[in-house]
Amino acid sequence: MLGFKRKLKLIAITDKKLKPDIIKSVEDALRGGATSVQLRLKESPTKEMVDLGLRIRRLTRDYDALYFVDDRLDVALATDADGVQLGPDDMPIAKARELAPNLIIGGSVYSLKEALMAEREGAHFLGAGSVFPTPSKSGVRVIGIDGLKEIVESVRIPVVAIGGINKDNVVDVLHTGVVGIAVISAIMGAEDVYKATLELRRIVDEVLKDE
Amino acid sequence: MLGFKRKLKLIAITDKKLKPDIIKSVEDALRGGATSVQLRLKESPTKEMVDLGLRIRRLTRDYDALYFVDDRLDVALATDADGVQLGPDDMPIAKARELAPNLIIGGSVYSLKEALMAEREGAHFLGAGSVFPTPSKSGVRVIGIDGLKEIVESVRIPVVAIGGINKDNVVDVLHTGVVGIAVISAIMGAEDVYKATLELRRIVDEVLKDE
Repeated sequence: MLGFKRKLKLIAITDKKLKPDIIKSVEDALRGGATSVQLRLKESPTKEMVDLGLRIRRLTRDYDALYFVDDRLDVALATDADGVQLGPDDMPIAKARELAPNLIIGGSVYSLKEALMAEREGAHFLGAGSVFPTPSKSGVRVIGIDGLKEIVESVRIPVVAIGGINKDNVVDVLHTGVVGIAVISAIMGAEDVYKATLELRRIVDEVLKDE
Repeated sequence: MLGFKRKLKLIAITDKKLKPDIIKSVEDALRGGATSVQLRLKESPTKEMVDLGLRIRRLTRDYDALYFVDDRLDVALATDADGVQLGPDDMPIAKARELAPNLIIGGSVYSLKEALMAEREGAHFLGAGSVFPTPSKSGVRVIGIDGLKEIVESVRIPVVAIGGINKDNVVDVLHTGVVGIAVISAIMGAEDVYKATLELRRIVDEVLKDE
């Protein structure tokens, strides 16, 4: 689990609606420089999740990237993921740590209160948002750059920003002290996933080298 | 895991649509004589599954019944279930056994071929069906009494019958050599879950005492 922080720079999250060929989109994102991939797949049969997860596991190994699973600890364990991302509606973080002590646990938080709670429960890092309004998730709370900064300054664990981040606003986001960004639309919504990832990665590297 | 077979006599499966108050329906079924409860909850947040599962775990302990989770190994592990029920669209049985060697694994099978495969993969028992057409699952294959009998005679592990079983057809089902039945509608579709379970349990006990 050591040294995972630097792999949180650019997390590409799958989106079956935007890119039905999940494996192709993941490989394009990895070629473009995604440092982690998160398999996020709601309402699919478990077997489909496991099959896709095993292929993403192989691809992420090839590209020396981390592989996370959203919500599903069973899929994470069955596919030898590096970690699992757990939000307020998912399995409690403390329970997940107990069941899977070797997994990196990312806490998905949407407020300072949730951030502090996730840290206390044992999250290894946080995915905090939604920084901006986002087409990928409707009805989520928008915390803005200020809300993000407050979370970054209030916890000791690494924070990754999520929610509506794209090449036009990413510089402001990175200046809050986050270790990286997680994106869906900015990558999976692009016509060319590879190019979109490449461009985001270039900006992230440029800004974070001075941080 | 020893001696679980006799607890498979009457498995009550939850149904949120038929009985939105899942905990009440489970307690009614247990009072009526269900020997196992299976938490089956599609498309609910994991946290809700875990919360309900923990309550069902306590109730089943009180009534000396077994507690299974449909599909979700993570929920089974997080709520200290006795077992998990896995079908062709769920996690592969062999993988589940590897991840959770202490859980009873029930394989859901819809043909002789699937039954033999689930046994080979390491299932501890089978849930075989659908014996009759059922309102709980549309589009499933109906194997009939003959198909059920063929499965029972072809495997060495205990078989539980599932699918459209009710008090009017349960005697024929029990004569195939199954160790028990799993029901949704016959119990959860009844106005009085307690009474419906009581009546089914009475018939099951009556028939199986001679087997």
